[in-house]
Order: sequence, then C-alpha cells, then structure tokens
Amino acid sequence: MSMQRIEADYLLETPADVRRVAEFMAGEQSSGTFVAIPGETPELKARVAAQVTRLEIIDETGLAPSLPSARLKAPVGGKYRRALVTLSWPLATLGPSLPNLLATVAGNLFELKPVTGLRLLDIRLPDEFASAYPGPRFGVEGTRRLAGVRGRPLIGTIIKPSVGLGPQETADVVDELCRAGIDFIKDDELQADGPACPFDARVAAVMGVINRHADRTGKKTMYAFNLTGDLDQMRRRHDTLLKHGATCMMASLNSVGLVGMIELARFGQLPIHAHRNGWGYLTRHPMLGWSYIAWQKIWRLAGADHMHVNGVGNKFAEEDESCIASARECLRPMFADKPCTAMPVFSSAQTAQQAPATYAGLGSTDLIVTAGGGIMAHPLGAAAGVAALQEAWEAALAGVSLAEFALTRPNLRRALEMAA
Amino acid sequence: MSMQRIEADYLLETPADVRRVAEFMAGEQSSGTFVAIPGETPELKARVAAQVTRLEIIDETGLAPSLPSARLKAPVGGKYRRALVTLSWPLATLGPSLPNLLATVAGNLFELKPVTGLRLLDIRLPDEFASAYPGPRFGVEGTRRLAGVRGRPLIGTIIKPSVGLGPQETADVVDELCRAGIDFIKDDELQADGPACPFDARVAAVMGVINRHADRTGKKTMYAFNLTGDLDQMRRRHDTLLKHGATCMMASLNSVGLVGMIELARFGQLPIHAHRNGWGYLTRHPMLGWSYIAWQKIWRLAGADHMHVNGVGNKFAEEDESCIASARECLRPMFADKPCTAMPVFSSAQTAQQAPATYAGLGSTDLIVTAGGGIMAHPLGAAAGVAALQEAWEAALAGVSLAEFALTRPNLRRALEMAA
Repeated sequence: MSMQRIEADYLLETPADVRRVAEFMAGEQSSGTFVAIPGETPELKARVAAQVTRLEIIDETGLAPSLPSARLKAPVGGKYRRALVTLSWPLATLGPSLPNLLATVAGNLFELKPVTGLRLLDIRLPDEFASAYPGPRFGVEGTRRLAGVRGRPLIGTIIKPSVGLGPQETADVVDELCRAGIDFIKDDELQADGPACPFDARVAAVMGVINRHADRTGKKTMYAFNLTGDLDQMRRRHDTLLKHGATCMMASLNSVGLVGMIELARFGQLPIHAHRNGWGYLTRHPMLGWSYIAWQKIWRLAGADHMHVNGVGNKFAEEDESCIASARECLRPMFADKPCTAMPVFSSAQTAQQAPATYAGLGSTDLIVTAGGGIMAHPLGAAAGVAALQEAWEAALAGVSLAEFALTRPNLRRALEMAA
Repeated sequence: MSMQRIEADYLLETPADVRRVAEFMAGEQSSGTFVAIPGETPELKARVAAQVTRLEIIDETGLAPSLPSARLKAPVGGKYRRALVTLSWPLATLGPSLPNLLATVAGNLFELKPVTGLRLLDIRLPDEFASAYPGPRFGVEGTRRLAGVRGRPLIGTIIKPSVGLGPQETADVVDELCRAGIDFIKDDELQADGPACPFDARVAAVMGVINRHADRTGKKTMYAFNLTGDLDQMRRRHDTLLKHGATCMMASLNSVGLVGMIELARFGQLPIHAHRNGWGYLTRHPMLGWSYIAWQKIWRLAGADHMHVNGVGNKFAEEDESCIASARECLRPMFADKPCTAMPVFSSAQTAQQAPATYAGLGSTDLIVTAGGGIMAHPLGAAAGVAALQEAWEAALAGVSLAEFALTRPNLRRALEMAA
C-alpha cells in the first residue's frame, strides 16, 4: 500500500482557537472521539491519525456566526475567525474507495459544535484512486466523435415544455430540431419514465426521427435520454438505448447517488450526461457544504462524461466567475496518467448573447451549450435559433463583436434583440 | 394511474413578491422555463403543472438575505419575507420513483435567483410509492427479535478508536463488550474495508467472538458491520456477513446514495443500520437544504431499518429539540398500510446522563443508544459502562431520578460523576 495521503482543503469559521478546532476536526475524522480512549495510543495515532498540514487565518472580523450552533458561547472579544485548513489522511485506513472517501472528507465534521462555518474547497487523491475507478469513458473526444462536431462547442437544447409532451410530441420537436441542424438535445431532468411519457416509447419515437435524419444527412444528433431511476430500471433503459442506436444517457447525480453512478459507468456503454440538479442545497451558502471544485472530482472519477456547470448570465443565483471556474476545472487533468476530463455543460437562460464571455472565460471550445428558450423561442423558429447560436460562436472564435457579426446575419440579429 | 398528487412543504425567503416566486418555483419544477414556450398550452399546464396549494407569510422583518444571490437587487422597503409554501405535482409526470422524486421536490429550485432562502420541510407521497419500494424489512420488531432485547432500548457502542485497530484487536474489544452484556456494537463510519483492517478478516474475527458468546449465554450481540462501498463490494461483503452469521449491516447514506441504498435493501437479508454522516452539509443552515423530517422519509421508504438522529446533549451543533423531533418522526407511520417505521439511533457523546430526557422526549423505548466514550471510558471498565446505561434506563422507565437510583448502584454513580 502506498504511503501517499488523501488531502482536503476547507474554509473553516469558528469562535474558538482555530488550531485547536482544526486538530479536533482531524481527531474526529480519524482515531479520536470526545473523550480520551484507552486504546488510542501514541503509536496508533502516529499511524492513522489525520494531520493538520496547513492552517492560515484569513479573516478575523466576523461579528456573527455564519451557522448557528447549540450551546456555543459567544467568543471572547466577539470575533469569529475564518481560516484555510488542510487535513490529510493515510490511504491505508480506507483504501481507494470513493464512497468511504466521502465519509472521511465530508462526514460528521460539518456538525461539530465549535464550527460555525465549514466548506470543502478541494480534494487531492493518491494515484490508487485513478486505478480503482474508470473515469469518463468518452469525455471530450468520445463525445465529439459520436456527435461529429469539431472545432466548436456542441450546440444543444432541452426539450421544452420540460414535462407534458408525450413520446410522439417529443419526437415532433426533435424532428424540427434535427432539421435545424442541432448537435445535442436532452430531456429535462423532470422527465424520466413517468406514465405520461414512458421512457421506452419516447426512445423509440425520438430515435426513429434521429436515425432517419442521420441516414439522410450523415449527421446524428446526440440525444441525452434521462434514464434516472432504480438500478434495474437504469439497466433496462440502457439496453433500450443501445437497441435504438442512442448515443448518450443522462442521469441526475443527486438522485442516483455515488454507488449508482459508479455502477452505471461500469455497465454503461454510452457517454454519461451528468445533471447536477439539487446542487443548490449543497453549495448555496458560502460558509457551508461543497465547492464545485471538490465535488466534480468525485463524479468525474466515478465516470461522468458531461458535467453541468450552470452558465454565464444564468437565471440562477450563481455569479458568472463561479460558473467559469467550475467549467475550467472540468477540463483540468486530475491525474498525470488519467486526466478524467469531462465536458462542461453550460445551461440556464443561455442565448447567443453569452458566447463571447463564455469563450473568453473558458478558453476552449470543449463544451456543450444548451439553450432551451434561447432556441425554441427564437422569433423565426428553432432553426433560426440554432443558426444564431452557431453564428455567435463563430463570432466569438473570430474575435468579432456579436453586433458587428449580426449586421449581415438576421438570425443572430433577432436572437440578440430577443435576449436584450 | 392515480389522480393523487405529491406534495412538498418549503420555508421560502425572498425579497420579491412571495406569490410570484412561489408560482415561479412551481413553473420551474414542472412545465415552465424562463421564457414563454410555444408548446406550453393552457391544456398542458392544467394537466402537468405543479400547483401552489398553500402560501402563508410568516415573517416580514429580515433586513439581509440569508443566502447571497448574484445580480439580485435589494428589495423595495428593505424587507426579505419568509413564507411557508406547499407545492403539489401530479404523480403521472414521474411515477412512484424515489430518484425522480428528488429531482422534482429538491432539484434546481434551491438555486433560483429571487430565492434568498429555501428549505424542504416535509413531503407527502401517494400510496403508489408504498407499493413501489420495500421500506424497512426488519424495523423495530425485526431488530428486537435478532438482538433479543424487549421492553428497553438496545444499549450499544461504537468501536473506538474509530480507526487503527486491526481485525483481532477489534475482536478483543468486542470480547470485552460481549462479556459486559452489551446489546449492539457498530463500526465507526470511518472503518469499512481499508487495507489496515480488511472487512472479511474483521467479520471473521468479530463474529467468532460473538458466536462463541452466543453459544455460551444465548445472547447474540448485534454488530453493524460497515459494508459501505461500491455495489459489487457491498454484495460480496453482505455474503461474508451471512456466512459468518452476522445480524446487521451498516451503510453511510450520503456515501452510498439513493440508488445504491435501494439496491442494498432489495438484495440484503439483514437490517440496514443507516448512518447519516455528511448530514451537516444538507441541513446546517436553517434557511437552506433539508429538514430531517423530509429527508428521513426517503431513506425509510428505500429500506433503512435504523436511522441516526444524533442525541440529547450531543457534541454537535444541533439543539436537543431537533434531535427529539427527528427521532419521533422515525417512529411515525408513513402510510396507513405500510408504516415504514425505523428505529432511531441516538449517538454523539451519549452517557447514562441523557436517559431520562431521551425517554421523556421520545415517549418510547424503541431506540438504539450508542455510547462510545460513555461506555469504553467508564472508570471501572466497559462492563461497568454497559451496566450504568442499563441502570440509567431502568431509572428513566421507573420515573426515579438518576441521582437517587445511583445511591445503591456504583456503576451508575461513577458514570454520572464522569459525565458531570
């Protein structure tokens, strides 16, 4: 077994002595408990105890705790300190196990009494983890190959209305989108296999349309079918996808959970479009929970090929800088011999308008952009919506302003007017 | 398909018009998106749209948002309003699927821009869910039968140090605890199947001890072995447990995730001791995430037999009232024909001291209490620690004060001195 260690970076807030609280966290997450235990010998601690390897106080000015804590006294001097803390663990205690990694780096420590704020910022894993898990089987290259798109983002959309269309109605929308030359379509995360739009019937109807267009034009639109469900259901739905020649499957990470996603990646033979709905409850408070930087590493290693990152100018609460940082991280290699890069998926109120800022921020065309209303509600129709997004990315890649590029391109012009 | 609907209760905070935000949430989580879509007809909306079935403003005094939101303007008049909101969905859209339920009631809506606070308080599910999932296979009755304990709580402990003991050292601790007459022992959530204490070797060593004691005394201590891992690992570890006559398995809910837990409950033939480590990041901010009332329903229906609820006088940040409310909820029937009751597990700094308040709050003896240091660090040894806890519960059930009961019981007296 390697002598390498697992590391996790935290943002900690506490009214107590920061060093003591960091040591308390390390103890709680390894050999310690709230009283001294006979068996916790110095030799055992040296072998298995978590260590505080970094501690940097960054802020001493907080007058109120970020999170309430029962029975916690106000600090002497009235200060709640914030610090960057790194803990490390020997790999031998848990082995290269993703589920047990979660209990170790993101277990009980968020509930500790002297902790009035704790956020997991990043994790670093020994190479044994790279050997133990598949990582994305398709990633950027596999996705581009299946979608037949090079040198620019995949332009995509989400079936809207999210729910309410039956299988044939969905296929009718897909028909229009394929005629418009779209690269990528996805189910909404609310649409899986309800009685109102059964999965098998939807796949048969939609893939009938997609295959017909592919036979005619050579371009096979990638459709991410939402197979989220119990394991036996996901296995059966995956087989349905293979039978009909589908090229992508979508799963909601927080619905399926880690063990289900690992299993899906092991038996699955299609790219996994990983939806992060529910992410808000994990991250929305800046002094609690998970940063996307730490979180996405877990899922990439488990096998996610596409990772949702929200979008520039989104309709949600997230700042653009945070969204761009998330997307860049998906393209940053995790291990020297196994980069595990996943394709970032930009969504939420995306239109032609955001192409230049997205390209400037990401510095790459390796992304999927999904525009729901941005395509489907284009005043000249869906085909014009797709064309406008393609033109907006052409402009961004050429370094020409959208306004100038739109002078001779009515589809883009109308899209910009709609977005204004 | 039933005409029944799924309902979810939220605590919402917003600087905007509360009614409009509630309608926005309903739209986002069903047929709507951020712009009007051609296909979203009145007929379709009537059929599938989520509805706001309750809206009650409870607080208008907030001067600052609980959660930051990018680009959100400060409210006119400076008020952030809080309201209780209930949304309902037709079952036909998703069917009785727990994973898809999560995307519906706990999906994107935590990230909406006008939402400066959102907490899922409770959910109510149509009976179709009771038919689709197993619920706890053992629950209170099955656990009592396997442990041979009636009329009082199961008195238990956690192997400490949490990590660092090898299989034989663990078995030596178990030997001492069995001699002390303990009902229940569990692995720490940090101990699963690392190279330093492999699962199979630990099970063999520990069950050798437990079976030997059971042969001699007729009392078989229940040991919850932590089999948390990938699915194939959990299957193999489950088989190891059956082979050695183990009577309980433990899994970390937030590590395994929903699909993995559903699968474990389907193939598993032992009670599932469900550990909630990581719960803090889901619940710690009072205006974000999940209440335990809503969250535990998901896992009980998925098949959890024992649910961790923290403990009275715990070392964590949670108030005692919250802990007691959680525990009572685990014993409250979910469906008329399928109660799905799970045994609440009290832990975290539990000692003899808390027995009266725990019994008064819960109003039942159907619980497991796990005292780590409270037993292992008793000055007269582990046997005295077990005896003290049993005596404390005898006192609570008899309505006698601990101090009075301890006058003639030295084990209890020393335990109370230690806890003071």
